[in-house]
Amino acid sequence: MSDGSVGAASSPGSASDPAILTIGDIAAAAARLAGVARRTPLLASEGLDAAVGGRLLVKPEPLQRTGSFKFRGAYNTIAQLPPGPVVAYSSGNHAQGVALAAKLLGRTATIIMPADAPAIKQQNTRRLGAEVVLYDRFGEDREAIGRDIATRTGAYLVKPYDDPRIMAGQGTVGLEMAEDARALGVVPDAAVVCCGGGGLIAGTATALRHHFPKIAVYSAEPVGFEDTARSLRSGVREGNRPGAVSICDALLAPMPGELTFAVNRRLLAGGLAVDDRAVLEAMRSAFLELKVVVEPGGAVALAAALTGALDCRGKTVLVVLSGGNVDPARFREALDLEPRRS
Amino acid sequence: MSDGSVGAASSPGSASDPAILTIGDIAAAAARLAGVARRTPLLASEGLDAAVGGRLLVKPEPLQRTGSFKFRGAYNTIAQLPPGPVVAYSSGNHAQGVALAAKLLGRTATIIMPADAPAIKQQNTRRLGAEVVLYDRFGEDREAIGRDIATRTGAYLVKPYDDPRIMAGQGTVGLEMAEDARALGVVPDAAVVCCGGGGLIAGTATALRHHFPKIAVYSAEPVGFEDTARSLRSGVREGNRPGAVSICDALLAPMPGELTFAVNRRLLAGGLAVDDRAVLEAMRSAFLELKVVVEPGGAVALAAALTGALDCRGKTVLVVLSGGNVDPARFREALDLEPRRS
Repeated sequence: MSDGSVGAASSPGSASDPAILTIGDIAAAAARLAGVARRTPLLASEGLDAAVGGRLLVKPEPLQRTGSFKFRGAYNTIAQLPPGPVVAYSSGNHAQGVALAAKLLGRTATIIMPADAPAIKQQNTRRLGAEVVLYDRFGEDREAIGRDIATRTGAYLVKPYDDPRIMAGQGTVGLEMAEDARALGVVPDAAVVCCGGGGLIAGTATALRHHFPKIAVYSAEPVGFEDTARSLRSGVREGNRPGAVSICDALLAPMPGELTFAVNRRLLAGGLAVDDRAVLEAMRSAFLELKVVVEPGGAVALAAALTGALDCRGKTVLVVLSGGNVDPARFREALDLEPRRS
Repeated sequence: MSDGSVGAASSPGSASDPAILTIGDIAAAAARLAGVARRTPLLASEGLDAAVGGRLLVKPEPLQRTGSFKFRGAYNTIAQLPPGPVVAYSSGNHAQGVALAAKLLGRTATIIMPADAPAIKQQNTRRLGAEVVLYDRFGEDREAIGRDIATRTGAYLVKPYDDPRIMAGQGTVGLEMAEDARALGVVPDAAVVCCGGGGLIAGTATALRHHFPKIAVYSAEPVGFEDTARSLRSGVREGNRPGAVSICDALLAPMPGELTFAVNRRLLAGGLAVDDRAVLEAMRSAFLELKVVVEPGGAVALAAALTGALDCRGKTVLVVLSGGNVDPARFREALDLEPRRS
């Protein structure tokens, strides 16, 4: 299906919302991140290709600093702020990304985390030099705590996704994939990217569609949290229905971001959803075939390819693994799925 | 300790045995492997650095095609053979490396594997298009079977390590590390590399000492199989004592290779040994800190750094993770070491 070369000079205007995010913003982010973020490779496996009947090229962001792509956007954002401390709320990957970025840029960081966040994530965030402020997820308002800290200390709030600087930083994932695909002589037919608030896929789709205007970019979400899939269908932002649960702790944003959705509704081909069983199977496949540790939320895009939610037969498909911060106990569930003690 | 820049023009003659292996052989291998082997990145982690009190730069060959560095040497060797089929004996990573290299080069491959080799490794080797011939490890002579196949079919035997073409291919691991360290502006003080037959470390030490003449390169082996460590001390090749056992199935060669040891005795600073517990802990650290799946034999070098067998305090140390073909059951042992279900 990769039936022709597409020039890099194709109109960028057709593939991004210049008012929010341009390919130039992503190129500028790439320049800021050069020598700071890790350039992750593009992986592949004969076994995965045989399983889907096509060709998968996989971007392993678990290998990124702090174990997820979040470091890219955090660094790109904080590097552009006036001098001063920063503050963020997050129970997971954004916390670690902000903490490391702030440390590297000589800023003081305060991270507001739920008191019941995994101890290992609290430890990792503190280890990176951030002050961790715990709050009661059920009795306190983290945004109020954040505003109070910002007012008292003059700290800048680093949002998790709904900020063009964040989106541009995450878009370097797509830019690197595009460059590496070109170096392989490949014109990908499709890409599948996980989606929580939508920052990673907004940036990645902007970069990919600049380089490959015909590429079909799909979001992947956990069943019950496919707010972006439904919003893409209806054309307006829709929230998730209450009561859903998922092991994909990184992808539980309540609804698409305002800015991210403005980009995604124009650039995405559609939205896919996968269940927890498919996610665990994808984590196991990444273990066996790619030797990469992937967390549940990081595996939804691969799950969409392996389950056939995205039909990859005869196609070349880019797949993003977004993070690998998973507890050993959860990872064991993936390993135990189909034990082969031959 | 990285106290100065070392010119690339320093004499290569001092750092390799020109009669066996030169930096030119490794550069030629790199050219053959360009666009074929994967260029694995150089990883690092704040957590590992804090644990050792120094700076570790880690080369993750589990991300290489077929899940280990072995593909490099196999491809470099087969690409130089006259047309015709190939044969190899191996129960593990060399088998898969030869199978894929032969497939890519349009050769027929026969792999002689013990009948009790893990089913998954037999399957992976067949999946890559090789014919697998099983033999009884206790009642049959695999070398006789190999000679018989070679005589009948005219196949070339692809040795696992004691061949300069194999060593040159594996040496591209060291060449890439040297190039990436230079790009980071780093002059490493030391390197630690696992050692079975000694092909990987012979090639890697040749490349590293060409670029960094003062670097101290250490072998890492499982306790009970530290034949290279003892041979380096005595100056002559010594075999392993009978009766030892180890979970490091990739590193159980009976004694150093003739050609590999001729290189290693001149280039290595010494040999280190680690026990199975330290290996499992290193596998767990790679899971938590690097998000890379490492097999036991692939983790001995990291184990040597983390246990302090190699004192890394205040130093910059290159560490090779050589492969990641590990069964889920074995990997669970590493995850179960120190469960954190916080």
